[in-house]
Amino acid sequence: MASTYGDKIKLSVFGESHGSGIGVVLDGLPAGEKIDMDAVLVQMARRAPGKDKTATPRRESDLPNILSGMLDGVLTGAPLCAVIENTNTRSGDYGNLLTMPRPAHSDYTAYVKYSGANDIRGGGHFSGRLTAPLVFAGAVCRQLLEKHGVKIAAHIASVGAVSDSRFCPTAIDDVLLNRLSVSSFALINEEIEETMRAEVEAARLDGDSVGGTIECAVTGLPVGIGEPMFNGVEGAVAGAVFGVPAVKGIEFGAGFDLAAMRGSQANDPFRYENGRVVTETNNCGGILGGITDGMPLIFRAVIKPTPSIAQKQRTVDLQTGENTELEIRGRHDPCIVPRAVPVIEAAAAVALMNLF
Amino acid sequence: MASTYGDKIKLSVFGESHGSGIGVVLDGLPAGEKIDMDAVLVQMARRAPGKDKTATPRRESDLPNILSGMLDGVLTGAPLCAVIENTNTRSGDYGNLLTMPRPAHSDYTAYVKYSGANDIRGGGHFSGRLTAPLVFAGAVCRQLLEKHGVKIAAHIASVGAVSDSRFCPTAIDDVLLNRLSVSSFALINEEIEETMRAEVEAARLDGDSVGGTIECAVTGLPVGIGEPMFNGVEGAVAGAVFGVPAVKGIEFGAGFDLAAMRGSQANDPFRYENGRVVTETNNCGGILGGITDGMPLIFRAVIKPTPSIAQKQRTVDLQTGENTELEIRGRHDPCIVPRAVPVIEAAAAVALMNLF
Amino acid sequence: MASTYGDKIKLSVFGESHGSGIGVVLDGLPAGEKIDMDAVLVQMARRAPGKDKTATPRRESDLPNILSGMLDGVLTGAPLCAVIENTNTRSGDYGNLLTMPRPAHSDYTAYVKYSGANDIRGGGHFSGRLTAPLVFAGAVCRQLLEKHGVKIAAHIASVGAVSDSRFCPTAIDDVLLNRLSVSSFALINEEIEETMRAEVEAARLDGDSVGGTIECAVTGLPVGIGEPMFNGVEGAVAGAVFGVPAVKGIEFGAGFDLAAMRGSQANDPFRYENGRVVTETNNCGGILGGITDGMPLIFRAVIKPTPSIAQKQRTVDLQTGENTELEIRGRHDPCIVPRAVPVIEAAAAVALMNLF
Amino acid sequence: MASTYGDKIKLSVFGESHGSGIGVVLDGLPAGEKIDMDAVLVQMARRAPGKDKTATPRRESDLPNILSGMLDGVLTGAPLCAVIENTNTRSGDYGNLLTMPRPAHSDYTAYVKYSGANDIRGGGHFSGRLTAPLVFAGAVCRQLLEKHGVKIAAHIASVGAVSDSRFCPTAIDDVLLNRLSVSSFALINEEIEETMRAEVEAARLDGDSVGGTIECAVTGLPVGIGEPMFNGVEGAVAGAVFGVPAVKGIEFGAGFDLAAMRGSQANDPFRYENGRVVTETNNCGGILGGITDGMPLIFRAVIKPTPSIAQKQRTVDLQTGENTELEIRGRHDPCIVPRAVPVIEAAAAVALMNLF
Repeated sequence: MASTYGDKIKLSVFGESHGSGIGVVLDGLPAGEKIDMDAVLVQMARRAPGKDKTATPRRESDLPNILSGMLDGVLTGAPLCAVIENTNTRSGDYGNLLTMPRPAHSDYTAYVKYSGANDIRGGGHFSGRLTAPLVFAGAVCRQLLEKHGVKIAAHIASVGAVSDSRFCPTAIDDVLLNRLSVSSFALINEEIEETMRAEVEAARLDGDSVGGTIECAVTGLPVGIGEPMFNGVEGAVAGAVFGVPAVKGIEFGAGFDLAAMRGSQANDPFRYENGRVVTETNNCGGILGGITDGMPLIFRAVIKPTPSIAQKQRTVDLQTGENTELEIRGRHDPCIVPRAVPVIEAAAAVALMNLF
Repeated sequence: MASTYGDKIKLSVFGESHGSGIGVVLDGLPAGEKIDMDAVLVQMARRAPGKDKTATPRRESDLPNILSGMLDGVLTGAPLCAVIENTNTRSGDYGNLLTMPRPAHSDYTAYVKYSGANDIRGGGHFSGRLTAPLVFAGAVCRQLLEKHGVKIAAHIASVGAVSDSRFCPTAIDDVLLNRLSVSSFALINEEIEETMRAEVEAARLDGDSVGGTIECAVTGLPVGIGEPMFNGVEGAVAGAVFGVPAVKGIEFGAGFDLAAMRGSQANDPFRYENGRVVTETNNCGGILGGITDGMPLIFRAVIKPTPSIAQKQRTVDLQTGENTELEIRGRHDPCIVPRAVPVIEAAAAVALMNLF
Repeated sequence: MASTYGDKIKLSVFGESHGSGIGVVLDGLPAGEKIDMDAVLVQMARRAPGKDKTATPRRESDLPNILSGMLDGVLTGAPLCAVIENTNTRSGDYGNLLTMPRPAHSDYTAYVKYSGANDIRGGGHFSGRLTAPLVFAGAVCRQLLEKHGVKIAAHIASVGAVSDSRFCPTAIDDVLLNRLSVSSFALINEEIEETMRAEVEAARLDGDSVGGTIECAVTGLPVGIGEPMFNGVEGAVAGAVFGVPAVKGIEFGAGFDLAAMRGSQANDPFRYENGRVVTETNNCGGILGGITDGMPLIFRAVIKPTPSIAQKQRTVDLQTGENTELEIRGRHDPCIVPRAVPVIEAAAAVALMNLF
Repeated sequence: MASTYGDKIKLSVFGESHGSGIGVVLDGLPAGEKIDMDAVLVQMARRAPGKDKTATPRRESDLPNILSGMLDGVLTGAPLCAVIENTNTRSGDYGNLLTMPRPAHSDYTAYVKYSGANDIRGGGHFSGRLTAPLVFAGAVCRQLLEKHGVKIAAHIASVGAVSDSRFCPTAIDDVLLNRLSVSSFALINEEIEETMRAEVEAARLDGDSVGGTIECAVTGLPVGIGEPMFNGVEGAVAGAVFGVPAVKGIEFGAGFDLAAMRGSQANDPFRYENGRVVTETNNCGGILGGITDGMPLIFRAVIKPTPSIAQKQRTVDLQTGENTELEIRGRHDPCIVPRAVPVIEAAAAVALMNLF
């Protein structure tokens, strides 16, 4: 299966960017839990396009319409379904004929896979717009997790050559997490915001785009979440995070740095602290044997540069069978990393809710 | 679920390192396919412990015993079950009482999760020994894939500070893949073998261990394998690869290097070559929108240093509730990366078989 | 999981009878297939309430709105989502306080299960209205199956004491199936329609309701559909059919009559007929070892009498903790069997599509 | 998938009747629970062939060998794997060439499905012998359920024309359940045993076989078990029970009798009894809306007559393409209903464990 995730809760994302609507069904949530819809909308707004730093949390065009599963703001136990209308669709100016696949997009692979029947307008089901329902689902799940003391927040760890500070892996305070989890340009070290924005602007001025990394932390997880082998926390979180378009890698704890480390450095010593078992370092990212150890869960994901750039690119013409060049028109985010931050948090929330 | 993987084929791994046997059930394989058991044993031998460069492909103690699903070397369509006997078990010298959890092992998290009922001897179900059935399953799957022209091979991309060459992402020849896929110390650049072995030996002499990375390539995949979103190739492969103990990160194509790249560099231009659509570069690792594009699928996984080291380590005594120190006795691999190479290949084979 | 079905295709039904909408997501359908929406609407109309024999196939209030997965009437390969608006909802005359559970309804069990948070209005997620999205999904699946020569039709096998003829298990012609599959009061022997309607009317006049059975036939299935054990055709079809409210039993082929039979009677002899292997009788209902044998698949399901009746019934008052009596107001179908016919066909279509 | 069942627990049955062994993997069981292996063996013995009324509970050839998941009789949390050796196999007297499919067996359908690669000896994976691992799994699950006060027992409701009494649907005492759940010829009314055995013997003397029904009751279930729609208790239990070869129908509560009933008869009135909500009758079989209502869960399954009979039968010769006749040699149960009783109980136990 494709656009579904989970076994204890079951997430099913549907929609195409130029269809009449997109949305999500989330089955298996606990009945009786109150959901703060304003907080959900804050998360939706963080992901929504076209905003600046002063964006209001509400944006009509991305309002999720709850079809079922909630009554007076309380989960009923029935599958939760939210639909987001596609308002700017049915543009008559292009048909469903793929001539020149855009490099680094799914145009070509989807065209072959679906024998040309897929909706190619705006990327169809592969559009980044499909992350909106995921953010909705994540926003609900994170509220349920927070009732058990679990907090989730991510930040822009890097964009191009500009890096933010990293989380301190053994001590992450709530103040930081609370700030990041509602930010639209989430940084630990806010002083680098200007430099980072300049990196994006430089790419934009070049008719180009730029990639980056996102670091996500989850605190308050009890010891014992996760299953051995294929449903360990790493695999479960990776399965959700790779569902986000443009993610091409994920690492937990010290991640790829572990390759150059000795065991004596990498192993996190255990210690009692206030009667609780903790680790002195956290190179394992809070996961041992696929199971949470009570320390912060930390992972980083890499986001490739936005594929749509203004520069001319080499591609093929599938109708004529010849090599050609392509210029993509329209406005595109020169860097989707800031908007991807709440999406990564949402993926983590869904994955952990499914393991809880 | 935990030790199961897949929906089109269904893999179920069972066993504990000190139980009477470990094994795997693989349901959903096509009937009528001939399996070369010698080739399966070659893969099992690559993973098996205690061998040196001249190891024979057969090692009695790790012989898989086929209980069902195969008749005269041909798959019957019934679930394939293979059991590997645990021969060196039931050692009377330690009970099931966990006192001092080994750092970086699952001892502590499994103990909490299973309320102390899990078999702690040798790591129980979390033992690296459980990768033997996975290699068996992968060895069967890779043969089935190879009948469709798909080849899988990996190599030790790095150990500590010593790195092998990388695959050329746009052109990987069968000669190289064939050589690597039966090697016990798989390197593209064989001249670095001595240096790399020295890196391992240095760690061993220090009573320490060392980590590394494994790079895996899959060629011959048709365009169109994989599903959008959560069952894209990246997520599906990651879900299997994170099932391998000690893996803490995975990246596809240019992976984390994409963070510092511009779109104009990262985007792989399309081009016709011999009437076939190819990409000039392969930063996407053969996957666009979660779907194979016909170029080599390439990923790298990081393997943390073997947690069991001879050096004294800080830990806690769960019985007394005090901080203490631990010395782990016995012989341990100072570096499991070489033996993990066939395991990563196996995980990839199972994941791709499930998508095919 | 609850409101989801399938592994090769994945069906997810959502909605509550008094929420803003109900619907279905169907993932895994083949791209490029043309769907005849008029034929879909015919099936929806067969199930829709409030019609008589002269009902038009269209009924505005039950029109499925396709949100995704279809473009110009052709499946795109993305998840197919259809939403049916609830137009007659938000009735202000009753809150969400369950006082007196209606006998034979889910009121009491859902109330306990969901701790009173479920939407009790009109049965919420347990409403028979939720079969509308199932009929939609089935209508799509049956069209896809028909392209492979598979035909599905059911009829009212009995209502109360009045029985229709049964399918001839070894020879069911297309003319009959075509007629039944669009009928709103589907009978093999149309001469009994008047008597059967009188049986229903008699119940209605008594302020009562009446049950019945539905017999369903599927022809044109190739040999070899279905898996051994738990995903055999019987289990797969039963899993879908028991998803229909009010179904309390299912039997395949000779069904419960097999209990009184000898093997020599029950065993269906094989015979060559026009070069094809057939069975002389069809007591197995077209399924041997869980796998289709090429003969018509035949099953019967029993539908309990509509629980909502006008007569006074004994129940409890959950607020006062006392025994009491209940009168259910409003108009209710005295017999839902005729409307359940297309629902049972739909369940069969979904189950078989998932096995195909 | 085929030989797997469940999502919260995951059952995977493997084996072929003439392979080297059969068995089961059961993943997701709770760690720390003590299992009484003698009680497991009692269940295995009830199903085992070749015994009479005085059979001992142990029968060496069907002893399950626990490979993993249990340590000193306690579940470890790792997948539980049990293997049963096939001791009387590798009979050299027939190859794997199917010439004449036995009527009412899976010979023909499996042969087509698996292109002749399936192991046809003794029915292969379709053999009734595969119910032995299911009984093992059920025996473990029923012990876990019993710790929560849940009791499961079934009886031979009928064989041919001879019927046992039925359970009183509103009051089933533990004494009866305890007696039935260890019986090898389980009857409520033991006075009919002789008559029923005579019915079987009459069939045997005719070189024939005879079918029957099994009625199963489960008491002590709390209110609220089961999910709406496709994972309701009816569907979940049916999915497991149809995994048992020879089952061709299942009904819950009043079952097919509901077809002829009025709502006023069928609806079970609620009433307070000792402060607890009960129903005065139990036509719904303890399930409303797919969810348990706290009353006994009651269902009946029909078992077709043993397909293997001594009488000459008409079949086809797949090699010559001609109609022919077949005489099946060897000893066969003239009635498998008594031995199927513990299998049906086991299927119910697994299904309910998965919903718990």
